[in-house]
Amino acid sequence: MKRALKEAKKAYENDEVPVGAVIVLDGKVIALAHNKRESSRDATAHAEILAIKKACKKLGDFRLSADMYVTLEPCLMCFGAILNARIKNLYIGAPQNKENAIRCEELNERAELNHKVSIVRGVLEGECSSLVSGYFLTKRKG
Amino acid sequence: MKRALKEAKKAYENDEVPVGAVIVLDGKVIALAHNKRESSRDATAHAEILAIKKACKKLGDFRLSADMYVTLEPCLMCFGAILNARIKNLYIGAPQNKENAIRCEELNERAELNHKVSIVRGVLEGECSSLVSGYFLTKRKG
Repeated sequence: MKRALKEAKKAYENDEVPVGAVIVLDGKVIALAHNKRESSRDATAHAEILAIKKACKKLGDFRLSADMYVTLEPCLMCFGAILNARIKNLYIGAPQNKENAIRCEELNERAELNHKVSIVRGVLEGECSSLVSGYFLTKRKG
Repeated sequence: MKRALKEAKKAYENDEVPVGAVIVLDGKVIALAHNKRESSRDATAHAEILAIKKACKKLGDFRLSADMYVTLEPCLMCFGAILNARIKNLYIGAPQNKENAIRCEELNERAELNHKVSIVRGVLEGECSSLVSGYFLTKRKG
């Protein structure tokens, strides 16, 4: 998660919502990415999607069977991508704080898909949450 | 939807699950794409994601405010991307036939996101469904 936080800070420096994602297979980092939605003007350019694309390219397979560390709870799109990419263990830093958010655990329970992911929350949560809330505080002040 | 079906047939010819997507803005087609998951070995390379990426690039904005026609009901990832890209009207051909699938309408109702999409089902459903079921029948026989 420390590596994911380092990625998230890169997004912060580029005035993007600070989210970082890391994919690990057999103890080795195979992909690192941070959110680039604003700079790339691409609705799909969230950290998780970019990391999955890199990892798929590296392994030459759309089934990763790897673990992901992400500093902020994934959105609907990214959680769907995590299932599609057959991520095994998902480690989440900060929770999504939007009201009525559909929690990843609920989607995971309900998902009819051929795959379920194991979810661990609250990894370096304090640091991950501070980064996101600091970003939005600065934006509001700005 | 006829254009989307034409895209889906390209996927079929490439031995991919036959799904096609078209994005329309002000009556003009701004993006066309078909599923390339197998050929690109990328878990995110569904027709809808590829079409959204093209449309974002074309408009230089991650908010599309456009309409999408897709031959098969979007998966979790793609429906999330449709919300993220601020698609206005979503026209679906064939329904997802997996048991316990989370229907797009339910996700749309529940989504805490800042955006809701208007969904119309059953557009050229017969032709869209036949294409998908034909593909899986051939695969099983193969």
